Amino acid sequence: MSFHDASVAAYLQMLNSLTGILTKAEAHCKAKNIQPDVLLGARLYPDMLSFTRQVQLVCDFATKGCARLTHSEVPTIPDTEKSFDELKARLAKTIDYVKSFKPAQFEGADSRDVTFPAGPDKTMTLKGQQFLSHYSLPNFYFHAATAHDILRHNGVEIGKRDFLGVS
Amino acid sequence: MSFHDASVAAYLQMLNSLTGILTKAEAHCKAKNIQPDVLLGARLYPDMLSFTRQVQLVCDFATKGCARLTHSEVPTIPDTEKSFDELKARLAKTIDYVKSFKPAQFEGADSRDVTFPAGPDKTMTLKGQQFLSHYSLPNFYFHAATAHDILRHNGVEIGKRDFLGVS
Repeated sequence: MSFHDASVAAYLQMLNSLTGILTKAEAHCKAKNIQPDVLLGARLYPDMLSFTRQVQLVCDFATKGCARLTHSEVPTIPDTEKSFDELKARLAKTIDYVKSFKPAQFEGADSRDVTFPAGPDKTMTLKGQQFLSHYSLPNFYFHAATAHDILRHNGVEIGKRDFLGVS
Repeated sequence: MSFHDASVAAYLQMLNSLTGILTKAEAHCKAKNIQPDVLLGARLYPDMLSFTRQVQLVCDFATKGCARLTHSEVPTIPDTEKSFDELKARLAKTIDYVKSFKPAQFEGADSRDVTFPAGPDKTMTLKGQQFLSHYSLPNFYFHAATAHDILRHNGVEIGKRDFLGVS
C-alpha cells in the first residue's frame, strides 16, 4: 500500500470536490438572490464554525498533513478569505501545494514520528500511520462534510455525489 | 503501511466515538425532556436522511468495507433500529464484526480488485486502495460527521473531541 496514495490522493479528491461545491453554492446565491455572505457565514449552531472556517480548516488539515508526514516546514496561511472566489483560490493553492509532494517523500512516513500541536501548550507525537488514520483524515473529512452539511441545510442542491466528486 | 491499520482501525475509532455520542444524545433527551424519536428522526433538510439512517450507514460502510476488501461474504443487515439502545446494539455488533478480521486477511488487499454496487443495475470495480481511500472512507466519515452535525444542530453538547473519540 502506498502511503502517498492514502494521503495525497485522499486530500486531493475532497479539495477538488469542495471546489465544485463552492461553484454550486455561488450559482445558488445568484439564482436565488442571496448575498454570498449569508452562506459564507452560515453555521449549524451558534457556537459552531462558519462555512468559511470549515473550508479553511479542510485546506489546513491537507496542507499540514502533508507537511508533517514528510517532516517538511509547516506553512502558516492566514485565514483572510471573504468571498467564494477567495475560498476557491485558497483551495487551488492548497491543491498545488499537496500535488507538489512526491511519492518518495512518503516512503517510510507511516512509521515516522509526527509531532503536532494538541492544544495551546501541548504537543502530541504519533506514528505517521496513526497520525493520518486517527487524526488528519478524520479531521479533514469532518470539516469537509460539515461544509457540505451547512450548504445542504441552507437549500443548496448538492448531494453525496458532489461530496465524493463523482457528479 | 498496514492496510488493516488503515481500514479496520479507522472504522473502529469512529464506531466507538459514535457510540459515545449516542450516549450523550440519549442523556440530552432525558435532561431536556425530549422524546428520543425527535432526535432519531431529525435531519438537516427535508430530503436528507435522518439521524438513525446516518448511523445505520456508518455501520454499513464499515461492515461492507471490511467484507469487500477481504473478499468475504457481504452481510445483509436489516435497518430496523428504532431507539438509541437499538442503534447502540447495531454499533456494538458492527464493532465485533470489524474486529473479527485479522491483519493477514488484508495483506495484498490494496491491489486486489473490489467490485461493488454503484446504482441499481451497475457495479464498479476499483483496486482495494482506491476503494478504501476514495469510496469507503469518504462515505463512512460523511455519514459519521453528518450524524454528529444533526445532533449538534439540535443542541446536543458534543464537539469534535467526541467525534474523534478523545473526550
